[in-house]
Amino acid sequence: MTEASRPNIIRIAHAVFTVRNLEASREFYVDLLGMNILHEEPGALYLRGVEDREWTLKLEEKGTSTVRHLAYRVNGEADLDALVTLAEREGLPYRWEEELDRPRLLRMQDPFGVPVVFYHVSQKHPWLLQDFHLHRGPGLQRVDHVNVMVPDVETTMRWYMDTLGFRLSEYTVDEQERYWAAWIQRRGGVHDLALTNGPGPRLHHWAYWMPDAMSILRTCDILAGARQPERIERGPGRHGVSNAFFLYIRDPDGHRIELYTSDYITVDPDFEPIRWLRDDPRRQTLWGARTPRSWFEEASEMEAFDGGTVQPVAGELTGIPVHVI
Amino acid sequence: MTEASRPNIIRIAHAVFTVRNLEASREFYVDLLGMNILHEEPGALYLRGVEDREWTLKLEEKGTSTVRHLAYRVNGEADLDALVTLAEREGLPYRWEEELDRPRLLRMQDPFGVPVVFYHVSQKHPWLLQDFHLHRGPGLQRVDHVNVMVPDVETTMRWYMDTLGFRLSEYTVDEQERYWAAWIQRRGGVHDLALTNGPGPRLHHWAYWMPDAMSILRTCDILAGARQPERIERGPGRHGVSNAFFLYIRDPDGHRIELYTSDYITVDPDFEPIRWLRDDPRRQTLWGARTPRSWFEEASEMEAFDGGTVQPVAGELTGIPVHVI
Amino acid sequence: MTEASRPNIIRIAHAVFTVRNLEASREFYVDLLGMNILHEEPGALYLRGVEDREWTLKLEEKGTSTVRHLAYRVNGEADLDALVTLAEREGLPYRWEEELDRPRLLRMQDPFGVPVVFYHVSQKHPWLLQDFHLHRGPGLQRVDHVNVMVPDVETTMRWYMDTLGFRLSEYTVDEQERYWAAWIQRRGGVHDLALTNGPGPRLHHWAYWMPDAMSILRTCDILAGARQPERIERGPGRHGVSNAFFLYIRDPDGHRIELYTSDYITVDPDFEPIRWLRDDPRRQTLWGARTPRSWFEEASEMEAFDGGTVQPVAGELTGIPVHVI
Amino acid sequence: MTEASRPNIIRIAHAVFTVRNLEASREFYVDLLGMNILHEEPGALYLRGVEDREWTLKLEEKGTSTVRHLAYRVNGEADLDALVTLAEREGLPYRWEEELDRPRLLRMQDPFGVPVVFYHVSQKHPWLLQDFHLHRGPGLQRVDHVNVMVPDVETTMRWYMDTLGFRLSEYTVDEQERYWAAWIQRRGGVHDLALTNGPGPRLHHWAYWMPDAMSILRTCDILAGARQPERIERGPGRHGVSNAFFLYIRDPDGHRIELYTSDYITVDPDFEPIRWLRDDPRRQTLWGARTPRSWFEEASEMEAFDGGTVQPVAGELTGIPVHVI
Ligand SMILES: [Ca+2]
Ligand SMILES: [Fe+2]
Ligand SMILES: [Fe+2]
Ligand SMILES: [Fe+2]
Ligand SMILES: [Fe+2]
Repeated sequence: MTEASRPNIIRIAHAVFTVRNLEASREFYVDLLGMNILHEEPGALYLRGVEDREWTLKLEEKGTSTVRHLAYRVNGEADLDALVTLAEREGLPYRWEEELDRPRLLRMQDPFGVPVVFYHVSQKHPWLLQDFHLHRGPGLQRVDHVNVMVPDVETTMRWYMDTLGFRLSEYTVDEQERYWAAWIQRRGGVHDLALTNGPGPRLHHWAYWMPDAMSILRTCDILAGARQPERIERGPGRHGVSNAFFLYIRDPDGHRIELYTSDYITVDPDFEPIRWLRDDPRRQTLWGARTPRSWFEEASEMEAFDGGTVQPVAGELTGIPVHVI
Repeated sequence: MTEASRPNIIRIAHAVFTVRNLEASREFYVDLLGMNILHEEPGALYLRGVEDREWTLKLEEKGTSTVRHLAYRVNGEADLDALVTLAEREGLPYRWEEELDRPRLLRMQDPFGVPVVFYHVSQKHPWLLQDFHLHRGPGLQRVDHVNVMVPDVETTMRWYMDTLGFRLSEYTVDEQERYWAAWIQRRGGVHDLALTNGPGPRLHHWAYWMPDAMSILRTCDILAGARQPERIERGPGRHGVSNAFFLYIRDPDGHRIELYTSDYITVDPDFEPIRWLRDDPRRQTLWGARTPRSWFEEASEMEAFDGGTVQPVAGELTGIPVHVI
Repeated sequence: MTEASRPNIIRIAHAVFTVRNLEASREFYVDLLGMNILHEEPGALYLRGVEDREWTLKLEEKGTSTVRHLAYRVNGEADLDALVTLAEREGLPYRWEEELDRPRLLRMQDPFGVPVVFYHVSQKHPWLLQDFHLHRGPGLQRVDHVNVMVPDVETTMRWYMDTLGFRLSEYTVDEQERYWAAWIQRRGGVHDLALTNGPGPRLHHWAYWMPDAMSILRTCDILAGARQPERIERGPGRHGVSNAFFLYIRDPDGHRIELYTSDYITVDPDFEPIRWLRDDPRRQTLWGARTPRSWFEEASEMEAFDGGTVQPVAGELTGIPVHVI
Repeated sequence: MTEASRPNIIRIAHAVFTVRNLEASREFYVDLLGMNILHEEPGALYLRGVEDREWTLKLEEKGTSTVRHLAYRVNGEADLDALVTLAEREGLPYRWEEELDRPRLLRMQDPFGVPVVFYHVSQKHPWLLQDFHLHRGPGLQRVDHVNVMVPDVETTMRWYMDTLGFRLSEYTVDEQERYWAAWIQRRGGVHDLALTNGPGPRLHHWAYWMPDAMSILRTCDILAGARQPERIERGPGRHGVSNAFFLYIRDPDGHRIELYTSDYITVDPDFEPIRWLRDDPRRQTLWGARTPRSWFEEASEMEAFDGGTVQPVAGELTGIPVHVI
C-alpha cells in the first residue's frame, strides 16, 4: 500500500473491558490506582489518566471478563474512509458503532481476529495534569500502549506495518530468527502496539504512562497497604526491551495493566530496530529477574465481531522463555 | 549539672498552635498536606504523620495565631521530677497541665520565655506507616524538629546543652565568632531544636520528616494545583546545614512548616559540630539560592505563662545574612 | 505552502557553540554534567546524552562565546532540496557545509537572522542508554529543544509554522493578545523550538531531556559539591508552560543549558494550544517562584552568515514579566 | 546486668571481609557500587560511604571468603574495660588487636561463635557527604546494620539484649511463638544487628544506608549495564519488617550486601516491638514478592578466634518460609 492511500493512524487511544463486578473494579482502578472518573453510567465507568483529555478505559459490567475492543485514533475522517476501503478489499468485517463522546467509531475485525476500532471525532475535556491537588494514588498519566498475544507474531506485525504504517522499534527472535515478540509504533515512542507470541488473539496487557519510577513504587506500596499484594504480578523493574521502568498488575477480573515510564523516542526516519534473543536474561527485565509463568500464559479473551469471544488459537511456536519462575 | 541528675529528654514531640479559622487550617493541613486526623473536637484538630503513633500537632481555633507550647517527650516520670527540681532551682514558672492522650504535662517557661512542655505518659495509636493506601497528599511522615527564633542564640543554646543535655550538631557564626544559629539534638539526628537569631522568642518553624525528596516536590505541585503557590515560601532545595532536602510553607495563619528529609546521624560520642560562616552562600541552600526576606523576619508569637503572648525582644545581633531576596 | 511541498523536519538535532576555554567547558559539560565525548579534536569536543546516537553539542574553542548554528534533522535528501527552493524563493542566504559525521549540511540564515542548519545523513553510533555503568553525573539523556530570543515572537512563530510546518503547543500573550513567547514542535512533544521575546536573535537556551526529576536535583548537588553554585541560574522547579520539571544552568561562557523532563505529548491533530497570560505567576514556575532578571536579559549571540555575529535588535515589546527577582 | 555496669555500645561500625581476588572486589565495590577508598595497602582496601567519617568495610585478599570480624563502636575506653570484665565473667575468649586508624580493638568471640570487635578510638576523616561531585555510582551513604545467621535466634537475641543493652524492634515467630528472626538496635534506628535462623554463625549480610529509593534502582541499572545482573539476588522491594526499601546483591566472593533506606525511628522508651508471623507473605517483601532460596541458604563463614573458620551448626528450627522461589 502506498503511503498516500494509507490510513493515517495517530496513536493507540482506548480500550473497553467487560468486568464481572463493577464495584470491585472501581475499588481497584479508582480507589487504589487513583484513575479519574470522567463519566459514570449504570453499569459503566469511563476512566482516564491525568494527562488524558478523553476517557481511555471503559469498564462495562457484564457476566464476562473480556475485551470488547481496542481503539486507535486516526488523523481525520478521510482516514476512516480509507479504512473502509481496506476492510472491503481484504474482506474484513466492519460496521459503524458509537461510544460516549465518540459518535463515529469504525469497528473492524483485523485478519487475526482482534476487535479494533478507529475514530477521529472525540469530545475533549479539560485535563487534570496540573490539578495536582486532585491526583489520587500513584497518578496514572496517559494511555501508552497495548500488548496483544497472537499465534503468529511476524505475520501480524507485517500486516500492521504494511497496511497501517506501523514502524518497528524492537523485536525478539529465537536462534532460528523466528519472531516471538515485536514492538511497533505510530506515535514516535517505543510502541503503540506490542505483539507477543502465544495462543490468541488475547489481550496481554493495557499500559499507562506514569510520571516517574517513584510513582510505580508507590503503586506497589498502595496495593500492599490495602492487603492486596497478590495484584502485583511482575516487577517493578526495568525492561531490557524499551528500557522502560515497569510494573504489571492484575485487576479483579484478571485483566493485566502495565504501569510504564521512561522509554525513548523513535522519530528518526532511519531508526534501526533493536533485536533481542528470546532467551537473553536481560531482555525482559534488564536486571535479570525471572518472569512468573502466569505472565506468559494468562491473557484476556476478546469479543468476536458477531458476539461471543474469539477462540484463542495456538501457533507454531510453543513454549515460553527459559527465564521463568 | 551532672549527667546523672539531668532530666533525660528523648525527643521533640508535639506543638499546639492557635489558628483563626480551623476550616482554613483543615484545608491546608488535611486536604492539601494530607496530614492524618487522630482526634477531632469542636474547635480542635489533633494531627499526625504516618509514622507518628501519637498526635504531633494540635490546632485550636482561637482569635489568635500563636504557639501555645512546644512539647518534648522524656524517658520516665522521674525525669519530670528532675525538671520540677530544675524549675524551682532556676525560678522558672511551671505547672501541671493535660492534653488529650497525655494526662500529665509539665508546662514550664524556659529562661528565654519559650513555653515548653514535658511529658512521659502518652496514649499510643496504631501507626499508618504501612497503610499506604490511606496516605494522602505528600505523606508527611513524623515530627522532626522545631526551630525557635531567639535574641541570644549562644546563651539559649548553652542552657539547653548544659541543663537538658542537648548536643551541638552545627552552628553559624559571623566573622567575630558570634552565634547566629545553632542546631542541637537529643535523638541522634541533626536536631530536635534549632535556634535562629532574631527578635523572640518566636516560633520560626515546625518540621516534619518526609519519605523522600520526591514527596517534597509533590507538595509544591499540590499547592500549585490548588492555586495556592503563595503558600510556598522557600525551596525546595538542599540545605548546606544538615544536608537535608527541604521546603518551607506557610499555613493560613502564617505558621511556618518545614518539610525535611535525608540528613545524617550524630550518635558518635566524638561527633564534631560543623561550623558555618553566616554569609557563606552554600550554608542556607547548598545550591546557592537566596532566601526571601520574610523567612528571616516573620515568625509566630508564643503564649506567655500567664496568658497573652510573650513580647518579642531583639538582641544585640541585628541584620540578616547578605544572601537574601 | 502546501503540506506536500513543505520540507519535512523531523526534530531539533544539534548545536555548535564557540567557547573561550575548552578545558573549562570540558570540566563543566564532561566532568560535572557527565556528558559523553563522542569525538575529540584539537580545539573541539563533540558531546551527546546517553540516548543520543549522534553528537548533539559541539564545542569549538575560539576567542568568542557564540552560537555557530542550530541544526534540525530532515526526513530525507528531498527535504533539503525543498529547503533550497524555499531559500531561493524567500531570498535567504544559504550554502552547503559539513561537520564530522554529517557530510551534507544545508546552512541557511532564517528571515530573523538565526543561523540554522538542516541535514539528513548522519553517522549513527551505538547509544549508551543501557550502559548505565558508564553514565556519569546526572546522566543527560537526549537533546530536547532550543529556545531562541527574538524581537518579534509572533512573526517568527508564523514563519516556522507556515513554512516549516511547526505546530503550536503553548503561547504567552499580554492583555492586548501580543505574543511574548511561543512553544512550537515537529516531533510530537511540547517543543523543538521555543521563541522568547527580547533583543535578538540570540540563543536563550539549549535543552536536554533528563531521566527524571531526581537527576535534576542531583545536578544541583553536583554543582554545589564542586563549589560552583553560581552556575545554577534558575530552578529547580516545575514549569507552568509544558508542565516539565526544569533547571537552568550557565556554562563557563554564559551559554544557558536547560535540563528538562516530564512534559506531555502533542500528537493529536486537534491538539488545542494552551494560552497563558504573561504575568500569571504560575506560568513560568508553577510553584510561583520568581525568575532572576539575568534569565530575561542574558543570551548568547549568534554567528552571522558571512562571519561575525548578528547584531541583536530589540522589538516593540519591551520590559519583562513582573514576577522577577 | 545493671544498666550502669553495662558497656555502652553506640552502633555497628565496620566489617572485615577476606576475598579471593581483590581486583574483582575492587571492580564490584569501587567501580560499580562507587564506594570510596579511604586507604589502600598491598592486599587490602579500606572503603566507606559518603557519610562515613571512618572506613566501614575492609577487604583483605586471602585464599578465603570469610568474615574476619564485625565491629561495634563503644562510648568510651571504660566501656572496653566493662567488656573485658564481661568476657572474663562469661569465659569468652578475647584479645587486643589493632587496625589502621583504630589502635585499640577488643576482639572477642561471643557465646555463639561470632567474632566481634569493640573500639572507641578511631581516626576520623572529612566526610564526602556534600562533595556530591565526587560521588560515584549509586552513592552508598553509611553503614547501617549487620545480619547474622544463627541456629538459636532467641538465645542469641536475649544475650545481646541482656548483656549489651540492645533493644528489640521487630521479630518473627512461627505459630508456636518460636523466634525465626529478630531485629535489635542500639542507635535509635530499626537495627544495628539482625539475627536470622539458620546454620551458623554465618554472616547473612552487611548493609549500607542509601540516600533514597532511586539510588537503589540505579544500582540495579548499573549492575545490569555492566552485564552482571546475576549479582542482584533479591529485590528491589519494600520490606514488611522495617518498612525499608531494599536490594540484596552478592559480591564476587558471595558476600551479601544489602542496600537499605527509609526505615523509622525507635527512640521512644515505650517503643513496642512489632511481631510478624513467619509465613506472612508481606513480612519479607511487603509487595508479596517471593524470596530466592539462595537468600535463605547461603551465607559467609566467620573466622574462629584461633584461626580457621567457625563450623556452622544447625539449630532446632529447620526449613525456610513458604514464600520462596
Ligand atoms: Ca527519592
Ligand atoms: Fe507493555
Ligand atoms: Fe528546620
Ligand atoms: Fe526550555
Ligand atoms: Fe538487612
